[in-house]
Amino acid sequence: MNRNNHLFELELSVRDYELDLQGIVNNSIYQNYLEHARHEYLYSRDIDFAGLHEEGKDLMISRLEIDYKYPLKSHDQFKVTLNVRREGHLKIVFDQTIRRIPDEKLIVKAQVFGVCLEQGKLVKPEKILDLEQLGL
Amino acid sequence: MNRNNHLFELELSVRDYELDLQGIVNNSIYQNYLEHARHEYLYSRDIDFAGLHEEGKDLMISRLEIDYKYPLKSHDQFKVTLNVRREGHLKIVFDQTIRRIPDEKLIVKAQVFGVCLEQGKLVKPEKILDLEQLGL
Amino acid sequence: MNRNNHLFELELSVRDYELDLQGIVNNSIYQNYLEHARHEYLYSRDIDFAGLHEEGKDLMISRLEIDYKYPLKSHDQFKVTLNVRREGHLKIVFDQTIRRIPDEKLIVKAQVFGVCLEQGKLVKPEKILDLEQLGL
Amino acid sequence: MNRNNHLFELELSVRDYELDLQGIVNNSIYQNYLEHARHEYLYSRDIDFAGLHEEGKDLMISRLEIDYKYPLKSHDQFKVTLNVRREGHLKIVFDQTIRRIPDEKLIVKAQVFGVCLEQGKLVKPEKILDLEQLGL
Repeated sequence: MNRNNHLFELELSVRDYELDLQGIVNNSIYQNYLEHARHEYLYSRDIDFAGLHEEGKDLMISRLEIDYKYPLKSHDQFKVTLNVRREGHLKIVFDQTIRRIPDEKLIVKAQVFGVCLEQGKLVKPEKILDLEQLGL
Repeated sequence: MNRNNHLFELELSVRDYELDLQGIVNNSIYQNYLEHARHEYLYSRDIDFAGLHEEGKDLMISRLEIDYKYPLKSHDQFKVTLNVRREGHLKIVFDQTIRRIPDEKLIVKAQVFGVCLEQGKLVKPEKILDLEQLGL
Repeated sequence: MNRNNHLFELELSVRDYELDLQGIVNNSIYQNYLEHARHEYLYSRDIDFAGLHEEGKDLMISRLEIDYKYPLKSHDQFKVTLNVRREGHLKIVFDQTIRRIPDEKLIVKAQVFGVCLEQGKLVKPEKILDLEQLGL
Repeated sequence: MNRNNHLFELELSVRDYELDLQGIVNNSIYQNYLEHARHEYLYSRDIDFAGLHEEGKDLMISRLEIDYKYPLKSHDQFKVTLNVRREGHLKIVFDQTIRRIPDEKLIVKAQVFGVCLEQGKLVKPEKILDLEQLGL
């Protein structure tokens, strides 16, 4: 954990093609930001999402809860943060936020529930992932 | 309400550019489908999302809960359904599903919480929308 | 060929999430429309882009020329048309247009140059495709 | 000009949601990369695309030529380069490349033809832009 109490963070900035006709980042785009931070986190822990898929091992999202607190606009910079925990035998939960830089204004708060599949079948996460490596 | 107990439905089909490296529709794309069905619903009731924005009236999503039940693949056809209800004084809730055609397999189930803004300020929905027109 | 002198056409309508801050369809989205029409055309001829990929056979774009004549807006309906021809030994060229419905206004005109790969190597189209099936 | 003979460059990396079922960056996404680099370039010269739009001044693309030389994959890093020149009285042309980092492999080469609109009408670029500021 770093001093801000999260395992991982990624700094990004808004690209104009992500804005919609309201002049703000479209709701679905925040999900892209959240996903990208999760994949970068995994990669920083030597877990390669694309590589796993080629071995028939897939990480899938089973549920997403997302609170939109404040919109991002053109040229905004922001950071995506991430913590990870287990829930039950099958789920890995990512607690994520998006905060504007530099004022730390909360933009999005999300809980993302992941499950693991091997050859298309639901398996316990430890079957396809080294959980210690993942910070669990 | 139609015989399937929802106010509105929209038939669409998967486009290959919506698939990700897992060969299935990317998680964020379902949010596009859900949004498109909401806007089409509004339009069918003579409420124009883009037109409202030009008058300084904005419909915004404050929260989204989405359960991913089964993925869509290349060439899948599906329908997005929608019901609408109020919650408290400020929120309009859209209950939505995505079901594959023709087998009705449940793909996604979502609750989408919307709020209304006028000149950037939160207002009661009846301030900017004719709720009867909206089916409320 | 139909009476309009093209092999294939596909009717679509603009979705609000495809609009950018200028309130018009973002330039990159037209490329999605063009691609979707090509894949639907192939599929109508029993050529499955996703299925070919699984066999190690890939259709790739080597060059795109696109003229933007007039922008599409919220709720616009349009059709994407397609003709196909060969150029040299290796290339298949798709001549495509996007026209607004119902006034036939020309929105986009494009030439899309495709090549064929087998196990990552450039091959003649007839190596992986039945050209007669494709209308060539 | 820098030592590499271009006015501006921007370093980015591939995000997994940009990959398609072929496991490579989808063709339309490169157009997003190119656009983002142009807007960042303009912004570095104190020209704000979103701000101009609010004043009724719009920069639009009238034509795009793009050669796809080699695909980007998961985790690839790359840089987008940009030069700018005039063509005739009305057009500004951006010559752009995308090169993989660190091996400088050429991924995409593009020519992007832009025009300027004021209140929806085509005008000479110098009517809405300070061309010296733009490097012209």
